Amino acid sequence: MQKKLIFITNDDGYRAEGLAALVEMARPFGDVVVVAPEEAQSGMSSALTSRAPVRLRKVSGGNGLTVYACSGTPVDCVKLAMTHVFNRKPDFLFSGINHGINTSIAVIYSGTLGAAAEGVLYHIPSAGFSINSYLSSPDFSACIRYGRQIIDTMTAHPFDNHTFLNINFPALPYEQIKGVRLCRQLRGVWAEEFEKRIDPHGEDYYWMSGQFVNQEKEAADADENAVLAGYVAVVPHHLDMTDYRELERLQSVWKF
Amino acid sequence: MQKKLIFITNDDGYRAEGLAALVEMARPFGDVVVVAPEEAQSGMSSALTSRAPVRLRKVSGGNGLTVYACSGTPVDCVKLAMTHVFNRKPDFLFSGINHGINTSIAVIYSGTLGAAAEGVLYHIPSAGFSINSYLSSPDFSACIRYGRQIIDTMTAHPFDNHTFLNINFPALPYEQIKGVRLCRQLRGVWAEEFEKRIDPHGEDYYWMSGQFVNQEKEAADADENAVLAGYVAVVPHHLDMTDYRELERLQSVWKF
Repeated sequence: MQKKLIFITNDDGYRAEGLAALVEMARPFGDVVVVAPEEAQSGMSSALTSRAPVRLRKVSGGNGLTVYACSGTPVDCVKLAMTHVFNRKPDFLFSGINHGINTSIAVIYSGTLGAAAEGVLYHIPSAGFSINSYLSSPDFSACIRYGRQIIDTMTAHPFDNHTFLNINFPALPYEQIKGVRLCRQLRGVWAEEFEKRIDPHGEDYYWMSGQFVNQEKEAADADENAVLAGYVAVVPHHLDMTDYRELERLQSVWKF
Repeated sequence: MQKKLIFITNDDGYRAEGLAALVEMARPFGDVVVVAPEEAQSGMSSALTSRAPVRLRKVSGGNGLTVYACSGTPVDCVKLAMTHVFNRKPDFLFSGINHGINTSIAVIYSGTLGAAAEGVLYHIPSAGFSINSYLSSPDFSACIRYGRQIIDTMTAHPFDNHTFLNINFPALPYEQIKGVRLCRQLRGVWAEEFEKRIDPHGEDYYWMSGQFVNQEKEAADADENAVLAGYVAVVPHHLDMTDYRELERLQSVWKF
């Protein structure tokens, strides 16, 4: 069997510890090529760089692991790598491990998941990984063990190629994690999101702040709740955002 | 009846002609408050600014039209305005009119639609508007006439508050537009997306380029095709990206 080719990226930058953990998770499965942002790009969603040039720099290579840094966004990393780095389609695209949970509405803001979504457009089985910890050095050992089980499973039973997976780990030791749960996206929002301050020159400025509001606290099948209950949450996401139910309803009501 | 309060934003910046056209479209319906980016923010998706402060500046006001410029992304504009500009919930959030079509996969990259999606999280009936023209001064007169019909319709028959509308106009005179069509998101991707160049110092750099690939050319009910056929395309989008069909299938196949 040909060795697998695994494309790894993230939104915390190529030097993040979460990326190193993801590389460690993935290396037993094949050759790893990292193309990740030079600097942290959190909250960049599916943003792309169209009005400025982007740079690509080879950081290191050899022994089944090659690392590139790209000056652009996570989506730029994927597009640039697919055009100018890979000669053949990678077998997997893995993004992360993000330092911080990416459940619920985070799917629309997260650069980690923006990169995973982009993989779908190249028909690469893609997944974003995140840990529910904001430490710069969380313990990733349980993520690595569970992640390998998930990679085994997705190899044995591939998921649909219009889908990417959003995988969130609790920040717990392996023994305390209760298992893997296939989930749906929780309904939630961020509230009170900008804090006003005054600079030394007397001018107002604003920092993003705010807190997450869980709108379905009782839903055991929703990603955020599963993670908080000690499960690894896996959500299949697709890129067709059409609201078909509302489309059908409006077609019967709206007349022009 | 209380005058409506209409929140307008965009991703081309507060000085864009498309925004002026949207203001003209909306003013007969109520008081308009613009909170839009200082500079062009195309392709910013749902990106948000968490690692730098954001500024807000009042540009002008009076006579039912107030304009603010914000240094952040389109999503920052919405979040900041909802926290620090509005005292009551706007009746509508309109984003655009984007200079350039935003159909199909553009929904995941577009800052115009990122802002409209954000409106949903505040339970504001929200819509993004785009014209299929990349001119800096396209003729928006047909957009304004059709847009007002659509606003009348959404007032008479409100759409679901988990949904935002993605509205794309052909760049045609009013008489040549065939009508309004409720559509779904077309399946498509961008191909060959980065062009390599060499700078005067001998270093490589890359410009985003590429072209759109329509993967469903025959689908009359898909947004892109409707616009190309001369219709105003309206797609209801929601923010739950869960792929429920694949979730159900994986639940029966994946065992841990």
